[in-house]
Amino acid sequence: MSPTSDSRLQVAVAVDLPAEHCRMIEHLEPRVRVLHRPDLNRPARWDADWEGDPGFTRTHEQEREFAELLEGADALFGIPDVDPARLAGAVRANPRLRWVHTTAAGGGAQVRTAGLAPADLERVAFTTSAGVHGSTLAEFALFGVLAGAKDLRRLERDQASRHWSSERRAMRHLDEMTVLIVGLGGIGAAAASRFAACGSTVWGTSRSGRPVEHVERVVPLEELATAASQADAIVVTLPGTPSTERLIGAEVLAAVRPGTILVNVGRGTVVDEDALLPALEDGRIGFAALDVFATEPLPEASPLWSHPNVLVSPHTAALSRQEGRRIAKLFARNATRLLDGEPLLNRVDTVEFY
Amino acid sequence: MSPTSDSRLQVAVAVDLPAEHCRMIEHLEPRVRVLHRPDLNRPARWDADWEGDPGFTRTHEQEREFAELLEGADALFGIPDVDPARLAGAVRANPRLRWVHTTAAGGGAQVRTAGLAPADLERVAFTTSAGVHGSTLAEFALFGVLAGAKDLRRLERDQASRHWSSERRAMRHLDEMTVLIVGLGGIGAAAASRFAACGSTVWGTSRSGRPVEHVERVVPLEELATAASQADAIVVTLPGTPSTERLIGAEVLAAVRPGTILVNVGRGTVVDEDALLPALEDGRIGFAALDVFATEPLPEASPLWSHPNVLVSPHTAALSRQEGRRIAKLFARNATRLLDGEPLLNRVDTVEFY
Repeated sequence: MSPTSDSRLQVAVAVDLPAEHCRMIEHLEPRVRVLHRPDLNRPARWDADWEGDPGFTRTHEQEREFAELLEGADALFGIPDVDPARLAGAVRANPRLRWVHTTAAGGGAQVRTAGLAPADLERVAFTTSAGVHGSTLAEFALFGVLAGAKDLRRLERDQASRHWSSERRAMRHLDEMTVLIVGLGGIGAAAASRFAACGSTVWGTSRSGRPVEHVERVVPLEELATAASQADAIVVTLPGTPSTERLIGAEVLAAVRPGTILVNVGRGTVVDEDALLPALEDGRIGFAALDVFATEPLPEASPLWSHPNVLVSPHTAALSRQEGRRIAKLFARNATRLLDGEPLLNRVDTVEFY
Repeated sequence: MSPTSDSRLQVAVAVDLPAEHCRMIEHLEPRVRVLHRPDLNRPARWDADWEGDPGFTRTHEQEREFAELLEGADALFGIPDVDPARLAGAVRANPRLRWVHTTAAGGGAQVRTAGLAPADLERVAFTTSAGVHGSTLAEFALFGVLAGAKDLRRLERDQASRHWSSERRAMRHLDEMTVLIVGLGGIGAAAASRFAACGSTVWGTSRSGRPVEHVERVVPLEELATAASQADAIVVTLPGTPSTERLIGAEVLAAVRPGTILVNVGRGTVVDEDALLPALEDGRIGFAALDVFATEPLPEASPLWSHPNVLVSPHTAALSRQEGRRIAKLFARNATRLLDGEPLLNRVDTVEFY
């Protein structure tokens, strides 16, 4: 493994990517050479477990080899051990490094945490796996809104008491509902197409105001509360940045109609949990399906765990047994763009870090 | 109200249809005269409650007027009190009757129960509201499959014990799944388009074998078990007829892979509940969302109530606050076809009664 004698883009795999996906990258972009030392990566405990087993420790020799692998690369597939401190070390130790691809959709936050110097942020391009999780998270959003619309909790209560209700109460139906998607990036666009296929009226917020397919009305963020007041369901897809923090807060939740459904598949910090709880209590929010939380793991004392109208998912909605393949494909596409001098997909904005 | 002096098609409204929908029918097809005596119908207890309040009783005088109304009509909107015996009486008492539109998707079963003479079945056309409930039931099917794929019961168990699983187990995703839709009528077609929009591989069974949009593979019924053995989810949409009875029985359930998801939004008799229970027990069926049952209301002693991997919905998934409007529109369309001598939509097959 002598990278300098090779004109190909030297890519060090810094997480446990299956060998077949490494081969796929080289197959899709032959100008890439994948440096893969699976014995040096924290082993995945399950599919797409990029963090890997925390119980794994490298021997002194392995640690040296791992550092050497990272230092000899032009690009990294993944953040070593998905540890921002390790990322900072790898960037500083390797002046030839040009590109780091993060396996998370919200990789920007990891890059921010690494606290890199401006010169390093300038020299190295960071990209995320946003979009890879688009379909999985869009599906969870669809599931969450459906669970609210079909009155899952009432069905379950009746079922628990073996009660066949004689009151034939109609469920709500997506084709009679307006769904407001907060954030029209990869996840939001994927959600929009699914809700549209179910006949919903789809609205969405974006900063650009650009039209998005299947979105009937693009709402500027300043009009979020007004739009929320006319929606039957709100789907949050935004990443965690200073400007999205607590966007779904007291003001928006004061505006909504009773029984509004809330789904969060973006980042937990976007929803103000302190404002959400009273909205759940008085029924403004009739059902909330939450895959993300302000603090994760969700603290055991959080009242969200036990609220009857909340469905807690432990930040797993994006996980897919196909995730490795999907990310590897995206990586190969971006490698081609890098080598062709084209702008990278999903490049992290190093001002806002999304 | 002297129907004989009027050349329009005289339609007696035999169920509690809101006045605005009666007006809509006359507006959409001016050759129809709607005979509407809301005081004579069992009042709806909720939206689209066609059966109406069983506590309502007509006075002797009202009973006479109701009979007169039905006897003076060329067509009935709805089966009087949704009671097959009443239907039989109304058909026999009215030789001018040409058409009865039932408000149920499975109206054929009601017509069968009425036990009409062959001459009456020949003389009167019966139509159902199939398709009106297509989108609502297709949505419930989507919800049911998603609930299974997202492992709702595991999420709920973990939530109940405030357990943030460190094992990041991937959910299943529709875009990695094959969904087999048993029955490609109105509900099946509506379900197919929704699953296709979510990226599923959609298969479906039909008797005709004709291609259906969004359905990648149309499976003949004889190959049902083989197809089921390769599907991740099975969605039953079929009506209850002698030939669909227990179609999803021991043979099909012996063929499926462990963890297969089952949804029934057709009729309960299509699934053999005695064969379903062992399949739930040993995990061949990983999750079942059932809106219909062989016996309804589901008997209190049924083990389906308490099975952890079953979601019971009390045959309400089709109910919609928009149902009256949807059925009235369909009725107007069919009235136009009747008056123009065209074949009616959703005509009941009076051999199989579907």
